[in-house]
Order: sequence, then C-alpha cells, then structure tokens
Amino acid sequence: MSKTIRLGLVGTGRIGQIHARTLKQTVPGAELVAVTDVNLDSARSCAAAYGIGQVADDYRRLLDDKTIEAVVICSSTDTHAPFITQAAEAGKHIFCEKPIAADLDIIDAALSAVERAGVKLMLGFNRRFDANHQRIKRAIEGGEIGTPHLLHIISRDPSPPPVEYVRVSGGMFFDMTIHDFDMARFLLGEVDEVYAAAGVMVDPRIGEAGDIDTAVVTLKFKNGAVGTIDNSRQAVYGYDQRVEVFGSKGSARSDNLYPNAVTFSTAQTVSRDLPLNFFLERYLPSYQAEMEAFVRALLDDKPMPVGGTDGRAPVVIAIAALRSYRENRPVKIAEV
Amino acid sequence: MSKTIRLGLVGTGRIGQIHARTLKQTVPGAELVAVTDVNLDSARSCAAAYGIGQVADDYRRLLDDKTIEAVVICSSTDTHAPFITQAAEAGKHIFCEKPIAADLDIIDAALSAVERAGVKLMLGFNRRFDANHQRIKRAIEGGEIGTPHLLHIISRDPSPPPVEYVRVSGGMFFDMTIHDFDMARFLLGEVDEVYAAAGVMVDPRIGEAGDIDTAVVTLKFKNGAVGTIDNSRQAVYGYDQRVEVFGSKGSARSDNLYPNAVTFSTAQTVSRDLPLNFFLERYLPSYQAEMEAFVRALLDDKPMPVGGTDGRAPVVIAIAALRSYRENRPVKIAEV
Amino acid sequence: MSKTIRLGLVGTGRIGQIHARTLKQTVPGAELVAVTDVNLDSARSCAAAYGIGQVADDYRRLLDDKTIEAVVICSSTDTHAPFITQAAEAGKHIFCEKPIAADLDIIDAALSAVERAGVKLMLGFNRRFDANHQRIKRAIEGGEIGTPHLLHIISRDPSPPPVEYVRVSGGMFFDMTIHDFDMARFLLGEVDEVYAAAGVMVDPRIGEAGDIDTAVVTLKFKNGAVGTIDNSRQAVYGYDQRVEVFGSKGSARSDNLYPNAVTFSTAQTVSRDLPLNFFLERYLPSYQAEMEAFVRALLDDKPMPVGGTDGRAPVVIAIAALRSYRENRPVKIAEV
Amino acid sequence: MSKTIRLGLVGTGRIGQIHARTLKQTVPGAELVAVTDVNLDSARSCAAAYGIGQVADDYRRLLDDKTIEAVVICSSTDTHAPFITQAAEAGKHIFCEKPIAADLDIIDAALSAVERAGVKLMLGFNRRFDANHQRIKRAIEGGEIGTPHLLHIISRDPSPPPVEYVRVSGGMFFDMTIHDFDMARFLLGEVDEVYAAAGVMVDPRIGEAGDIDTAVVTLKFKNGAVGTIDNSRQAVYGYDQRVEVFGSKGSARSDNLYPNAVTFSTAQTVSRDLPLNFFLERYLPSYQAEMEAFVRALLDDKPMPVGGTDGRAPVVIAIAALRSYRENRPVKIAEV
Repeated sequence: MSKTIRLGLVGTGRIGQIHARTLKQTVPGAELVAVTDVNLDSARSCAAAYGIGQVADDYRRLLDDKTIEAVVICSSTDTHAPFITQAAEAGKHIFCEKPIAADLDIIDAALSAVERAGVKLMLGFNRRFDANHQRIKRAIEGGEIGTPHLLHIISRDPSPPPVEYVRVSGGMFFDMTIHDFDMARFLLGEVDEVYAAAGVMVDPRIGEAGDIDTAVVTLKFKNGAVGTIDNSRQAVYGYDQRVEVFGSKGSARSDNLYPNAVTFSTAQTVSRDLPLNFFLERYLPSYQAEMEAFVRALLDDKPMPVGGTDGRAPVVIAIAALRSYRENRPVKIAEV
Repeated sequence: MSKTIRLGLVGTGRIGQIHARTLKQTVPGAELVAVTDVNLDSARSCAAAYGIGQVADDYRRLLDDKTIEAVVICSSTDTHAPFITQAAEAGKHIFCEKPIAADLDIIDAALSAVERAGVKLMLGFNRRFDANHQRIKRAIEGGEIGTPHLLHIISRDPSPPPVEYVRVSGGMFFDMTIHDFDMARFLLGEVDEVYAAAGVMVDPRIGEAGDIDTAVVTLKFKNGAVGTIDNSRQAVYGYDQRVEVFGSKGSARSDNLYPNAVTFSTAQTVSRDLPLNFFLERYLPSYQAEMEAFVRALLDDKPMPVGGTDGRAPVVIAIAALRSYRENRPVKIAEV
Repeated sequence: MSKTIRLGLVGTGRIGQIHARTLKQTVPGAELVAVTDVNLDSARSCAAAYGIGQVADDYRRLLDDKTIEAVVICSSTDTHAPFITQAAEAGKHIFCEKPIAADLDIIDAALSAVERAGVKLMLGFNRRFDANHQRIKRAIEGGEIGTPHLLHIISRDPSPPPVEYVRVSGGMFFDMTIHDFDMARFLLGEVDEVYAAAGVMVDPRIGEAGDIDTAVVTLKFKNGAVGTIDNSRQAVYGYDQRVEVFGSKGSARSDNLYPNAVTFSTAQTVSRDLPLNFFLERYLPSYQAEMEAFVRALLDDKPMPVGGTDGRAPVVIAIAALRSYRENRPVKIAEV
Repeated sequence: MSKTIRLGLVGTGRIGQIHARTLKQTVPGAELVAVTDVNLDSARSCAAAYGIGQVADDYRRLLDDKTIEAVVICSSTDTHAPFITQAAEAGKHIFCEKPIAADLDIIDAALSAVERAGVKLMLGFNRRFDANHQRIKRAIEGGEIGTPHLLHIISRDPSPPPVEYVRVSGGMFFDMTIHDFDMARFLLGEVDEVYAAAGVMVDPRIGEAGDIDTAVVTLKFKNGAVGTIDNSRQAVYGYDQRVEVFGSKGSARSDNLYPNAVTFSTAQTVSRDLPLNFFLERYLPSYQAEMEAFVRALLDDKPMPVGGTDGRAPVVIAIAALRSYRENRPVKIAEV
C-alpha cells in the first residue's frame, strides 16, 4: 500500500460535495483525483470548487483507471448495490453511503461480490464518528458505567421531507430509523427482538403516502439489555439527537449541540438559542472523521470500522420493525 | 362544612409520620386530633412528637368519634380496602395511601362503599403534586407544547428493596411502576394498550423471588400518543425521576433535583454532587401539597383532585403490563 | 444546661414570624414561650398562628422572665444594640438579626455588654447556612479547589426597595452589600483593602435620595486573594445569588435556585422558568438552619457559629467601601 | 477591486500556519500566493502543506510583488510595526496579528503610515469573531438586555507560559489581558478609568521575572457602566473564557465550550469532560471567521471590522492598568 491513496468519487450531490471537500482538504494521505456524476455539470462544478483534475459523467471511468485504488459512492441509493459490485469486481476498495439497499437479496449479492474480490468496504454510518456518540461508546467500553441495562435514543428531525420524497423513501424505518438501528448496534451490540409502536401525528399526508412519521421502537438486545428509539419527523425546535445509556455503575447521556453557549435571562424567561437545526451542520465533524477513518484503514491495511455486516444488520432490524408495526407484535430478528 | 376539618390518622409508620407532621404544622384548616396504630408505641411516639391529643391502637376509635370528619389511611396495604369501606360506612371522608389493593374486585368493593356513602375519597399519588410534574402538566394544558405525541418517564430507584419485601410487594409493576402509570394518566390521559419488556439485571435474587428489576413499558394512549416508562430498581447515582413530553409545538422535560447548585471544575472533571437520593427528601413538598389539596377540597366541598377511579386505573394498567411481559405481546387495557 | 432551651422573641414582623414558626415547628430542643412586639396585635396574631403562650408589647417582659434563657431579636434595626445590651445584662443568650448598628461605637458598646455578661451572641447572617454557600465553604476547607485565588459574588435584588426606605436604609453598602461582605469573610477570611466603583443606573430617584443602586466592590484579602462583589438593586429576571471561588486546584461556582427543573423547547427558544424571586423563598432553608444552629450551640454550650466580631467586621468593610466610593481610591480596612 | 484577492503571508509559526490553511481552504475570494519566514524551512514546510506556490525568507519579496494586494503579518511582535509601515508604503492592505506594539509612539507611527498610504488595516483580535462573544454583542445591540450596567469577563489560561517567555512578554496586561481589554471595548465601548488589583499566586518565578499571574481589573466605561476582568495564568481545568453582561432588561452570559455534551452519573458524582483546553481549538472558528471578514472587507471595499484605533486603544488601557497596579489607585485613560 502506498503512502497515499488515490480515490475517485461518484455522485456530487450534497453529501458527495461534503466528502469531496473533506478528501481534498482535511484527510491526510487522501488523493481525490476524479469525480463523476450522471449530471456532468454537477461533477464539473464540484471538481472546479475543490481542484479535482478528472471529471466524467460515467462511473466506469473510475473503475477503468488502474491508478485509482478506492471509490467513494455517493450516488442515489438504487445505484449503491450495483456500484459496489462493479467496484469490487474492478478490485477497488469501497466507501458507500448508507443504505446498501432495502432488499436483503440485493445486499447479500453486493456483499458477496466484495468478499469474492477481497476488497475492503466501509458503510457511511457517520454518526458513529460523532464526538458525543463516540464518547458514550468509550464510556461503555471503558467500564465507566458498568454493564449496560437500558438504552434510549432520541432522534427527531427538524421537519419532514416532502411527501413526494416520502413516497419513494422506503418508509421511515428504512430512511430515518436506519441510523438509530445502527447506533443501537454500535453501542449495545446485536438486537434479538423488536417491537414498534408508531403513528401519523405530524402530517396526515405522510399517512396517505403509506408511511408513519412518529415511532417508538423497543429493542431487546442479545445481551439482555432493553432499548428504545424515539423518532419524530418534526421537532419544531430543531434537530434532536440524544442518547442515554444506563448501566450497573451509572449512566451516560448526551445533550444536543448548540450554535453558542450563551444564556439569556430576562423578565420573561431564562433561555438559550435553539439547537443546531441542519444535519450537515450538526454532524459535519463526523463526516470528516469517517472519511479519515476510511483512508486510514486503507493506509494501514486494517479492517474497516463499519463493514458490510454493519450495512446489512440495520436493514434486517428495519424489516422486523415494519413487520412488528403492521402486525402489532414483537418480532424476532431471526424471523427475517 | 366547618372552617376547619377534624381529622384522624391511622398508621404511624414512615409516611404516616410525614402526613401527621404536615397536618399539624403546615396545612391551613386541618385539625389532626387523633392517631392510631396497631403498634401503640409508634402511635404514642408520633402523637408526642407533633402534639396530637388522642392516641389508640384501634382504628375503630377514629370511626366512632363523631367529631372526626375525615381519616387519613397510612396503614399497611392490605388494610387499605377494608379501612376505606369502614370509614365510608362511618360517613368519614377518606385520604388513602396508594394502592387501594392489587385485586380489582377488592378495589371495586371499596369504591362502591365510598359511592354509596357519598363521602369523598382521595388517593395518595403524591407525585402529581410535585413542582416539576405539575409544571409539565400546566405546559400541556396551556398549549405550550401543542398536541402531545410522545411521553417518556424515567423512574429509577437508588437501590432495590430487601428481597423479603420483594416477595410480598406484589411485583415491580404494582409496587413501583404504579406511580408511573398514574403519572402517564395524569399527563396524557387514558391508556389503550401496553407492552412490557423487562428483565432481571440488578440482582438475581429478585428474579428468584419471582420479580423483575428493570423494565421498559410502552404505552399507547387513547388519544393516539405513545409513551414509555423506564424503570430500574437501582440507579447507583441516586433517585432518577425525569419526564419528557414531546408535542407538535415543542417539548417539556424535567431534570432531577439536587442538594445544591454548585459546579466544581478540577484538573480531572467538571462535576456536581449527586441528585437527591431519598424519595421522602425528593418528594417531600409533594406530600405536603397533596395533604393541603385534600383538606382544601373538603373545606371547599369540591371534588377530590385524585379520586377513586385514579386509584383503580393504574392497577388495571399494571395487570395488563404483567400479562404483556409474561406473554410477550401487547395487551389491550380493555382485556383486563 | 437543660435539654431544651426556653426562648422569647421580640419583633413579629416578616422575619420574626419566620423565626417564630421555625422555633415552634422544626428546631429540636427549642421552646418558644413568649413573643413581644410594640404592635401588640402583631404579637398576638403571631402567637395565635404558632401556638405561643405568652404575648406582650414590652420587650422587658422577656428579660424579666427568669425561665427564659435566650432571646431572639427581630425588631427594627435601631433597637438591636440597646436590646442586645439589655438582654446581656439580664443574662440571656442572644440571637440578633443583622446589622447590630451602622455606628461602630454603638456596636462596640453592645459587644462589650455581651462580653461582660458572658452570654452568647449570634448574628443573623443566614446566607452562611444556605446549602450552596455551605457547599462552597466545605470545598474550600476540604481542599477540593486548593488555595483560593479569586472570589466573585453576584448579589442582585429583583427590584429596588421604595425610595422612602432607601432614605433611611443607611445606604446600599450597609443595607444590601453587608450580606456580601459577610459572605466574603465567611468564604475567604479577613479583608485588608476595598475599592468600590458604583453608580445610579436603575432609578435616578435612588440617586436623589443620596444612595447608589449598582456597584462593583473589589476586595483584597489578608491572605492575598482578590475578590469582587457585584450588586444591583434590580435584576429583572429575579433574585440573583451566585458565588464563584477559583483556586490553585480548581473552582466551585453556584447557580441560582429555580422553582422547577423543567426545560421547554419550542420553535422560538429553549427556556426555563425564572429563578426564585423572593428572598424568603430563596433563603428559607437557611433561616431554618441558622435557628437550629443557634439552639444547638446553646444546648451543647459551644461557641456561636456567627459571633459578635462577625457582626462588627462587615460594618467596618461597608464604612471603608463607602469612603472608597466617595473618594475614588482603595481604602485599607485598618483606616476605619 | 478584482473578484479575488492575492495575498502574501509573513511568519509561518503556529498562528501563521492557521491563517495560511484558512486562506487556502475556506475563505471565498482569497488567493494566498506566497509565504515568507526568516526560517526558510518553516516557510517551505507551510507552503508544501497547503500548496502555496512562492516561498521566501525575505518579507520584502511580498512587498515587491506587484500582484499581491494584501499581506498577512504573523511574524514576531517586534516586527509588527515596521512591517505594517513597509506594507503601507508599498500600497498593500494589511492584516496584522495583535498587538501592534507596546509603545504608543511606535503604534502611532505605524498607524500614520497606514493613513498616509490610504490602505486598509485590520488587527487580529480574533475573539470578536467567536460565536459566543458575537451573540452577546448582538444581544446588546438588539436591545435584548436593555442598557448595559455591568460586565464581567473571565479569561483564564490553562497553564502559564515558560518563565523565559514571561520575561520578554511585556507583562500579563500586554500579553494576555490585552484580549480582554479589546473584548470590553467590543462589547461596551470606550473605557474611562481602570483599577487593577493583582498578584503572584500561581508561580513565584513569574513574580521574580517581574510579572503578575493573577488579576482583577475594574473598568469604568464612558457610558457609566462598570466592568471587571478576571485573569489567571492557570486554570487547572482548562481554558476558561466566559462573559456576562447585565443590563436594565436582563443579562447574557456565556459558558465555556466542551469537547462533547455528555453527562456521566456514577455512584460518586455527576460529571462531564473538561472544557476545551487549547486556545487554537477553542477559538479556531474565530480565526477562520476573522480571515473571512478581512478578505470580504477587501472584496467589498468596506471598512475593516477591527481597525487601527482598535489596535491602539487596548494598549492604552494596558498601560493605565499597569500604572494602576503599581501605584494602587484608579487611573484615568486620559492620563496615558
């Protein structure tokens, strides 16, 4: 393995631009040499913004370039699995945005291709690299709070996506809760059973589109701990991202992040400004840290910190959660 | 109704002494004239401490005293229902510690006696009178947070009761969670369905005694909201009593109470002292406020703030929760 | 010394009633047997409210009663010194509200009488008994924050007193800052020099009455530490009482006290209710604790926790502060 | 003025590297084309790290390059004034790290050169661009807290500089408090009088080197408000940077910044990790924001947000503070 890694990136939308900038500006050992997007103008604009030499509208150009060792897949979700497979067959290491797919057969086919090719695959569960979640993980692993008994994840978006998006999103469990299923696994390990209580409380049009907008999911972990995930598509005060782990020796809980640490006291109230509202602002350092971790694992030839099974498992939990909600009963993960 | 209320109190254990002192010292319009306890020494000691004139070991003495208008029942749980019935038949108004009983037939018999006699009955769900919980209730009723969608109750004891007590306690749902079921009803109204995930995580001897020590109970409310209750018999950092209600216009959440508001910063950590550990310290003002509310309702001839149905409903939820836990399925309240 | 102390109280105004209730209801070993007030109706009303047997309009009645061992002086400030002297001469132990007087000769005469009589005297600097200030004191004494270097006292009233009161109050340093001078001594010991920057910022009528309403006083302590006191007659958000001590091993700082621990998040702001506004509410437990300490010191025949020199020293600092403000220069305490 | 600004930077030490990276990576419209340092290796290393084309050991190379419109001066303090003068004479706009100098004649000469040349000068008081301080400034200007009465600045370093540095630093008021004098002016405007109480509490060697390590400076502002600055060279818990402004309609106060928002509760304590310790970490966004502001003012041909008088005024206050400390008396700014 060389001292730097030559990379190509596909998909120069919002998250693709974030990763392109990170790779060019802040990741030691990364050489982002090419970007592609089916929208060539988008690819060109991204390349110009960050000084990337090669541009194309065809993903194959990354795969055909023998000097490129790894690809970063930020294109639309339906392309994830085929692009993973093709990259693996071309012998490239792969970073892919979540989720691989909503269908387990498709996921399994992609993961098989990766395994056959012997390349490395990392999934973009960026929240694992957030300073708060990492600190809680360290507290668990370091024994600061003893054996975990209970977990609570609060994960509420500031506002729902457009109904048009809801229709094609695969549903809240696959589109939004998927991050929380991953966080649950990251913190407490494998899930054994899931029970979902949910409803349409924010906007009836979301219900008409066949989806839910509010949910409480109970997780039973294989180690005996119990957890909950609280989701809402609309927290009017902003992006609400909190975790609490309670164990035999204590608890660790995170608060939201704020634009400043100023408290105001007036004749009416003691107050502070609203928490960060936009996920790219809230989680920007985590996107940078995950890309650093990807490149570092390549440079050091170490296992990826978020691998293929981490891409598959939360989809399985989402499938179980949806079944639980529809049939109103606890569903074993082994059922799926 | 006279300008003051003459009361008798039965059961001079820990909570009985709290109520005796409150009635003698801080409740306007209350005249506590007699205390009884099967342990006559205990009754005498309480009477001496607070300057109460009449003492007896027989509860009947309160009922036979025509000048006593109301009784405060703080004796052991198994006496609650018969004492309520006898007091009602004697025409006395009644304050009774929770729970009335664990058996619905027994509860219903007692409530029928109350209804027949036309006396007033208040149940001792003191947490409803806590400043934090009251403030959240006011926020809901005042529309500060819009329509409630989600509720979370964290209710963890600092340490488990002796195993001998666990054996006769009726089980955690009836002994501990009962307060939280009441809190859920207080804040969001009637419950429609319950799902309980629970286990023995704190002490295996609790499991050997046939009980659980850790639980997450999911509640579906009739108004469509969803809630959870998080219980542990042992939070090593102290008594953990927090509530969060999330609604269409915002959220209200309470923190624990602390012995002081001092923050220490040293070379190791930024810290504060542990939260209040003992329920009588944490909830003392609520015990005083509930007794004031009881006497005020008598003086003003108003309905009791926590009536007989409030005594019955959480027992029904506890029965449903236990069934849910045993059969691992959501249980409708209407089933019970 | 008997197992209980028989006490008489003079002055049944606001603070006198607080002490009367405390002595009757919560102080072990205290027997409050008589109250007097020049306003006999006030004395009668207080006696009736708390069940005190003897009532009079003449303070001498307390002194003539051989069975009374101690007096609690809550009458107007101009009576403090003469009442202390008379009580001492009558052989009574004394609790006296602050300040003894604004004139050092008068104070010294009263303290001499106390010394000659060999009775005990405690001054009513209640804040020393507040849980926050006590905790900071313990942190200093226990070495938790090392050698103190810096002290900051924030002490702001919710609203200014009537201008009529301002005219006879002796001025802000004697009426309000006196508590903070005592707190400074309580926490860091003797003061060596003082510099006062002050002004009229809240209400020009206070300036017309010859007083100030806002001040920052710098204190140099004999141990080398430096401190500040921040005073305002009007904090629109409520009673602001905070202390920070910074030392070689860390810092301890206290926040205000609040009526509840509930945080609200809405589309506009993250907020909580205003801090406690009324000093009797904010400091009620400290009034109770100081009275317990007084009675306990009598029962145990121990030195008073706040003695005569603690009554004199803050007056000296106030005199120095006023001189500093008028002459705009640092003033040594030894000058006064 | 072109759509981009070509810049040269002198001094590639710690802060110079920060500015170089910022100008290359995050400032729209900035073209950093050259760096110089008397240590040529340092300049080369910086140029290589951020892809800067021209490198030299002679500052004149920046001035002789006609295509360079502005210079960023990050060299040692003694070079600031001459480099400003030379840059002005060469017609370059100037960003200069604080302070210009400790001698007013030298400062005035440099500012005269700037004025004669008609170039723009910005001083590097980065804290003005910190989100917390900016928010408090906005609160004042927006009337959120009414007319300011009182200001408190807490500004404590995590650990003292080496004694060798202390000897040549110009003294704490010039080296450390200078930032706080600027902050005071930024928030409340011009200072009229200053009184400094200070001492050697952290390390006697600092005293032997002729300096102080702990200070409380009282500021009287021209608008009548009063403020304090609290400085210590050693806060063992980390970098302590807090501000409180109290006004007629309320207060605004900032807390420190932390690496995460996680709270731990154990059997011993409720705690969180220490605040950010390193000024470059704590204030990194402010360094980036000030550089953006500099370039934006050039692009838009607007006045600099921190100009020459802002570079001179805090030095005048520092001179007054030192005189106040030495003579132990309040010193008028007009005296200096």
